[in-house]
Amino acid sequence: AQGEDVVAGIRTPQPMTRLAAAAAKATLPSMEDAMPEVFQQFVQVAATLENHFRDMQDIEFTVQHNKLWMLQTRGGKRTTAAALRIAIAMAEEGLITKEEAVRRINPASLDQLLHPGLDPKAPRQRLTKALPASPGAASGAAVFDADTATDWAKRGQAVILVRAETSPEDIHGMHAAKGILTSRGGMTSHAAVVARGMGRPCVVGATDLKIDGQKRTLTLGNTICREGDKITLDGSTGEVFLGEVPTIEPKLSGDFAILMQWADACRTLKIFTNAETPHDARVARQFGAEGIGLCRTEHMFFHEDRILVVRMMIFAREEGQRQAALALLLPMQRDDFAELFRIMGELPVMVRLLDPPLHEFLPPTDKELEEVARACSISLTEARQRAAELHETNPMLGHRGCRLGITYPEIYAMQIRAIFEAQQIVRKETGQNIIPQIMIPLIHGKPEMVLLEKQVASIAADVEAEHQTKLPYILGTMIELPRAALKAGEIAEHAAFFSFGTNDLTQTTLGLSRDDAASFLGKYQELGLLEHDPFVTLDIGGVGELIKIASERGRAARPDIKIGICGEHGGDPASIAFCQQVGMDYVSCSPYRVPIARLAAAQAALALKKNGEF
Amino acid sequence: AQGEDVVAGIRTPQPMTRLAAAAAKATLPSMEDAMPEVFQQFVQVAATLENHFRDMQDIEFTVQHNKLWMLQTRGGKRTTAAALRIAIAMAEEGLITKEEAVRRINPASLDQLLHPGLDPKAPRQRLTKALPASPGAASGAAVFDADTATDWAKRGQAVILVRAETSPEDIHGMHAAKGILTSRGGMTSHAAVVARGMGRPCVVGATDLKIDGQKRTLTLGNTICREGDKITLDGSTGEVFLGEVPTIEPKLSGDFAILMQWADACRTLKIFTNAETPHDARVARQFGAEGIGLCRTEHMFFHEDRILVVRMMIFAREEGQRQAALALLLPMQRDDFAELFRIMGELPVMVRLLDPPLHEFLPPTDKELEEVARACSISLTEARQRAAELHETNPMLGHRGCRLGITYPEIYAMQIRAIFEAQQIVRKETGQNIIPQIMIPLIHGKPEMVLLEKQVASIAADVEAEHQTKLPYILGTMIELPRAALKAGEIAEHAAFFSFGTNDLTQTTLGLSRDDAASFLGKYQELGLLEHDPFVTLDIGGVGELIKIASERGRAARPDIKIGICGEHGGDPASIAFCQQVGMDYVSCSPYRVPIARLAAAQAALALKKNGEF
Repeated sequence: AQGEDVVAGIRTPQPMTRLAAAAAKATLPSMEDAMPEVFQQFVQVAATLENHFRDMQDIEFTVQHNKLWMLQTRGGKRTTAAALRIAIAMAEEGLITKEEAVRRINPASLDQLLHPGLDPKAPRQRLTKALPASPGAASGAAVFDADTATDWAKRGQAVILVRAETSPEDIHGMHAAKGILTSRGGMTSHAAVVARGMGRPCVVGATDLKIDGQKRTLTLGNTICREGDKITLDGSTGEVFLGEVPTIEPKLSGDFAILMQWADACRTLKIFTNAETPHDARVARQFGAEGIGLCRTEHMFFHEDRILVVRMMIFAREEGQRQAALALLLPMQRDDFAELFRIMGELPVMVRLLDPPLHEFLPPTDKELEEVARACSISLTEARQRAAELHETNPMLGHRGCRLGITYPEIYAMQIRAIFEAQQIVRKETGQNIIPQIMIPLIHGKPEMVLLEKQVASIAADVEAEHQTKLPYILGTMIELPRAALKAGEIAEHAAFFSFGTNDLTQTTLGLSRDDAASFLGKYQELGLLEHDPFVTLDIGGVGELIKIASERGRAARPDIKIGICGEHGGDPASIAFCQQVGMDYVSCSPYRVPIARLAAAQAALALKKNGEF
Repeated sequence: AQGEDVVAGIRTPQPMTRLAAAAAKATLPSMEDAMPEVFQQFVQVAATLENHFRDMQDIEFTVQHNKLWMLQTRGGKRTTAAALRIAIAMAEEGLITKEEAVRRINPASLDQLLHPGLDPKAPRQRLTKALPASPGAASGAAVFDADTATDWAKRGQAVILVRAETSPEDIHGMHAAKGILTSRGGMTSHAAVVARGMGRPCVVGATDLKIDGQKRTLTLGNTICREGDKITLDGSTGEVFLGEVPTIEPKLSGDFAILMQWADACRTLKIFTNAETPHDARVARQFGAEGIGLCRTEHMFFHEDRILVVRMMIFAREEGQRQAALALLLPMQRDDFAELFRIMGELPVMVRLLDPPLHEFLPPTDKELEEVARACSISLTEARQRAAELHETNPMLGHRGCRLGITYPEIYAMQIRAIFEAQQIVRKETGQNIIPQIMIPLIHGKPEMVLLEKQVASIAADVEAEHQTKLPYILGTMIELPRAALKAGEIAEHAAFFSFGTNDLTQTTLGLSRDDAASFLGKYQELGLLEHDPFVTLDIGGVGELIKIASERGRAARPDIKIGICGEHGGDPASIAFCQQVGMDYVSCSPYRVPIARLAAAQAALALKKNGEF
């Protein structure tokens, strides 16, 4: 930098030049006086750049021998709230269009607004920093198992669930907790994925923390945190603090609401949500969801008051015993569905029949196994043997989805009946035209669809006859196996909608287990062998081609077929852009990602419009 | 059957009418006398039918009021040996063409000829009948673990390995045994698949037998068979006998050799074999294999004298330790490859680099784990932890294939160097132009291929420099993931051949784990949801479409690319017909299926010719 008089960086504020001059004056008070001509020149150049980029600029310049040299300019960084304020103010002043305002906000950055944040002024004592798996901040008493989380939460205590890692067994504890902290796992671990879905702040992979579930302690060096001690998580930064740090609640009105309104005016994709609890369904509607695109009925099975009955069904040695357990589950599922129908009204509700393999519901401890054995009147040995029989080498490719429904038809029969009975109840109760959408998981071809179509029709007819009423419904399928994508033409003859289960379709298309990929995915990204984590952003080259093939074949066979995706990708802006390009009808994502999806869908539609493809 | 005088069935013998008359006379001596005109008429009709169908007929007829009624005619059943004799005699007499003779023999029926069979006249005491998993008959002393099998076999004792089920750990015992018997598993269980590959007689799923590995007994009711007691298996019927039943060796000369010669003249597909041991390679050449299409290098890792070194490599905490273990493995693999090159000469040898996940090599018992810990100078706790780290939820979709080679480049480096060093040794020794073909497993796209292409080239250059010689080689890849099939165009820019790993491609395309499918595949076939077991006969609608897509894209990018399949389907006649239709260059199958594949390939070529597509 020899011979330079001034090298400076300046961030031009908004709106525009009149402020830019004032700010330049404020930050470099001597410049206007020392070199007034150069200063005037700079103000003009800055205004030109801002007008060109239609955005606040972060400018680097230098003055050498009284001559102004512009070195670099780029969009200025700002908080999401500031970005919103600027975009809306500019649009309201007529400097940019509303569409341009919609284009300017990074959808992913909305996450900052949708969750509580730590009060920036509050004092804090940081324990560690790990992976920011799910945004938002929360404080509570540390608890070390899901049951304690549920118990303490029932007593009105705010708790943080602390585990080495989580499993489906912990779902009720995750629901009960204000936040989740794990010492193992990455951004796609069970804890991370489920917490994002629930909108719970979550920090994972805190490998320096020693979590002792037996002693119920959390240790880092000499610092010990015992059960009941307060801790605070910031899921947006991955930080963990000792004690309680005050948080600030998000505001969803004002600028946010205005931008969402503008975005909705631009988009063509419907935004649905993945939800099965009344709470999630309500949150999603609040965030603007236009339906439920994925109701995972098995999540209802993990509820504390049901899991024993579910296990009784699994441990049943014959159909009669299984029927008895299912008869206990029927009213519970019926109530679940009825409540969802009440909340969603005439909006679509797509209910996926049981999907995971039965062993996911097995008791994890000997104590619980004994409980099940007692309830089923079988010996512990027999219970152990049954559990061992259910073990699978590759559960992802195992006895699950419609394969379960086909080999144990009484399980799907119960779920289908629960749907129709709930439909009948809520139609009668509200007078609304409730039309459930039933979704079959994991089909590989048309024959499974034909078989299950008959089962659904026969149960619908039964319930219609029992209540002397018509119960219209829509039957569709998940497309989550490469073979189903290839056979989409035949399948569409029997399916009114396709929902791409992109999590599973990614696993099968790439031969990549989401649970095991962590051991090499990092290396693969480092070496450039994978552009993105394919579980976060859709693998457009591989999975995307199968989606295109399936969409084309499906539409060719049934022009009015509805096509969408559910799963993590439904809330990822880059994946949403792809969904728009291939002409999908909807995307479905977790409740807390609905606003992100609304904005991303708007931008995707605008991008196509710009390219004249729309 | 009111009012009928005679209802009779007659099997017309061959060759043709002059014998038919004699036989009719012999089986129904009164007919010629009782109704000579009808008899003459029957002889004429039979001759017409035989001439029309060009095959021995199984005819049903009736005579009513002295009038002949023909009820049914179909090809007569006969043993494979008889069928061969008839077809060849007819061709030699000029009644049918050689091509017609080739068309007439069911390829699968050759299995009867390729294995020893039980002496039909010998007395026997049957214990049970289960699934006929791998044809042939064998007698030996019952042993209950793989090590005992190996030890006793070394002392010259014929043994039958008896296990509840087998795992890769048992490979050396399966090699040492004359036959394999399991109480669990189906036609695609580990024992069944491996035994077929080895050509060992095998009976699986003998669920009524109680096998006690601890007490070393086999029990059925009151019958107890102890270690050392003689038993006999008939893998063609699934029968298990107590004691020794004499067997008859197969004859591969005569009619069999003639038919094979005729078949070879018809076919265009090359027939390769899956082999990694010198024994298998020799057997395959004897059966007419024209190269090795799949040498599974990991099978070499399970040898008794290597598994400890392999485990030392796996338990290594850092690259240095891993390198030390690999340095011990290098000469062993080099010798393996050199021996295969010596046996196969200038025929193609396609060597697949390490494919299974590392945990497949873990010690199954605590005793063995201790041994490894000692060898690696680590504590048992540490060894246990490492073993636990390697555990995978879905190993089929896990850290395996080229993913291992990429994250642990030193493993593939050792294998690649061993190949080139072996090549150099055998080229020097024999003067033959040995050109190894290196095959990369489980790629999902071009970037992996580019990376590994560089590694192979660099090691080839090193070995060339060390020995001052040129070492030509061919680099290709397995296509076993749907994404790889879709990306075949790009991949072909860096691969001189594609080998469809149809076992894995079936698992990923259908989302179906071969190890777990038994729990519902039966029900699926019963309900008509799957036409065939997709692990036996290629799923042409799904997997087949991916093969077509990949072949087209591969050939478009590289017109001279060589395309084939390896795995169980390579020996299945229906699948071979599909390979012919899509224009593959070769199929590769287990040694004992080579003759079946030769005949099936001939028939597939003739079928295309007949349809004028050839």
